[in-house]
Amino acid sequence: MKLGEAPVLAHSLSTADQALVDGVLAGQRRALAKAITLIESTRHDHQQRAQQVLNALLPQTGNAIRIGISGVPGAGKSTFIEALGVWLIEQGKKLAVLAVDPSSSVSGGSILGDKTRMEQLCQREEAFIRPSPSAGSLGGVAEKTREAMLLCEAAGFDVIIVETVGVGQSETTVAGMVDMFCLLQLPNAGDDLQAIKKGIVEIADLVVINKADIDRQATAVVRAQWRNALHMLRPASPNWAPPVIALSALHKEGIVDFWEQIEKYQAALKPTGEFAAKRQHQSLSWMWQLIDSGLRQHFRHHPRVQENLPALTLSVEQGHTTPAAAAYALLDYLKH
Amino acid sequence: MKLGEAPVLAHSLSTADQALVDGVLAGQRRALAKAITLIESTRHDHQQRAQQVLNALLPQTGNAIRIGISGVPGAGKSTFIEALGVWLIEQGKKLAVLAVDPSSSVSGGSILGDKTRMEQLCQREEAFIRPSPSAGSLGGVAEKTREAMLLCEAAGFDVIIVETVGVGQSETTVAGMVDMFCLLQLPNAGDDLQAIKKGIVEIADLVVINKADIDRQATAVVRAQWRNALHMLRPASPNWAPPVIALSALHKEGIVDFWEQIEKYQAALKPTGEFAAKRQHQSLSWMWQLIDSGLRQHFRHHPRVQENLPALTLSVEQGHTTPAAAAYALLDYLKH
Repeated sequence: MKLGEAPVLAHSLSTADQALVDGVLAGQRRALAKAITLIESTRHDHQQRAQQVLNALLPQTGNAIRIGISGVPGAGKSTFIEALGVWLIEQGKKLAVLAVDPSSSVSGGSILGDKTRMEQLCQREEAFIRPSPSAGSLGGVAEKTREAMLLCEAAGFDVIIVETVGVGQSETTVAGMVDMFCLLQLPNAGDDLQAIKKGIVEIADLVVINKADIDRQATAVVRAQWRNALHMLRPASPNWAPPVIALSALHKEGIVDFWEQIEKYQAALKPTGEFAAKRQHQSLSWMWQLIDSGLRQHFRHHPRVQENLPALTLSVEQGHTTPAAAAYALLDYLKH
Repeated sequence: MKLGEAPVLAHSLSTADQALVDGVLAGQRRALAKAITLIESTRHDHQQRAQQVLNALLPQTGNAIRIGISGVPGAGKSTFIEALGVWLIEQGKKLAVLAVDPSSSVSGGSILGDKTRMEQLCQREEAFIRPSPSAGSLGGVAEKTREAMLLCEAAGFDVIIVETVGVGQSETTVAGMVDMFCLLQLPNAGDDLQAIKKGIVEIADLVVINKADIDRQATAVVRAQWRNALHMLRPASPNWAPPVIALSALHKEGIVDFWEQIEKYQAALKPTGEFAAKRQHQSLSWMWQLIDSGLRQHFRHHPRVQENLPALTLSVEQGHTTPAAAAYALLDYLKH
């Protein structure tokens, strides 16, 4: 890329940051952890350095398969990720586990915060586990995780798993940064299914009924219900109809089946170019989300908007002003 | 409301516009049609006058029940709306039918454009039928329809029906402007259900299987499938689980059942304040959509953004720049 095209790359790396880049590329865990910490820092000078480090590493990213794993607390996410991780390492793969949990700053880290939850995986050199950044907003947490994912790829990890809990929009956000989004469910038939949040059925590329060993019959029922539900919807991809599989992570049963689905998915989407197109779309969509959020922040900080927004909001709520009249009046303030 | 709170109301109405306001309030169809035409005009002076007319009428709006009706071509929307409308008029109600069809500017008006589609209804004084504005973008069409809805309310219509086809995001947009969103389906079991678009299952407040007379057995199957699908999802309202009903608009069978659901819905949502809260939320959400879209337009027209956006977009697509670095670089241009 020519220099003129990307003015953001104008600064060169300091010796320390070049060492950090080299360390990450060499797959050093300490360098990787340090680079992620730099990315997660809220200090302005750290953020600038982080962007330079990231840009230097970018050409070495994109080679992993990015898998999102979601499920309510108790669905067995940690047990599943540990069983999958240990098996992947046996197959000669290196695996990084990241987390998106916007509630972690409140709760003190509800997922992955306690590393003892994945005891075996934590001891393996081939695995890298990083708890959710406690950066407050979902957008902030997601941005850090997205960039940590790139660092892990530059460090040579083959499989990136992004774990999330069903808090607010976190599943949709994670689905927007991974290649394949997997939903972990329990074999609770009937009314419990109503707890499935809006929009989740539609972003799942794979539904996994975990703890199938507890109740085989209930598992079959839930599996059929899920198949029906997915059957009602036009699949997101013309090349992939989301399957529903059952397994037992605790008994390491069905892990191979799970991985076969991941490979089938790639085999279905890569030759048609859909896999690469999805990543491009995700990157651009992320860029526009950040732009929109920046524009809104600028708008909200404008003195005349700050002054008039509360009264106009109230007036719209009470039906005294149309939404359009209020919006155009507020936008007009920006011009002066 | 004090004058100082809403500077958009500063101008007073001309004599002609005051006559228009009075005509709409008197329920004159010509005045109503003329006011909607003013709203749909793209001329800047017309738009300013339209906002003033709207603001003068606002206190008299909000008294109708706003119903969204969606369904693929062939689902029988016109036949259903006509049967419902004639029945409502028999019950002493006045009804306005509007449409949101962003494709109408391309196709020359695919819904409601041909008034002969609702022959009986068109001849009734108690009904007002208006085709979709052909204003191009969905946002533009939706804004005009939203405002036309307010004018119809000011003119004394008790029931507003907003019809839409399943084009792009049109259903979600209509669901965001009505009290109750109804989805018209056909008794085609099996694979045809896969054609249901993402997000639609979740915004339906009522699912109607039309043409139930054609195949009673298939109707029962589809009805059960829809019930299962809706059962999988947490309902949008704590006070309302979306029902699935079957009817035959052609044979005027089930129209009363349909209206009973509309009344049950209001009885369930109004006492808890949810009905009013939903309208407030819709108005504010619409205001913010217009603000965001205005901010983005301003952003895209900035000379340095225009100059650098294509190269940065390409660089993000090719993985040479992170989405964050590109977004921040572009936002920086706005400051200079």
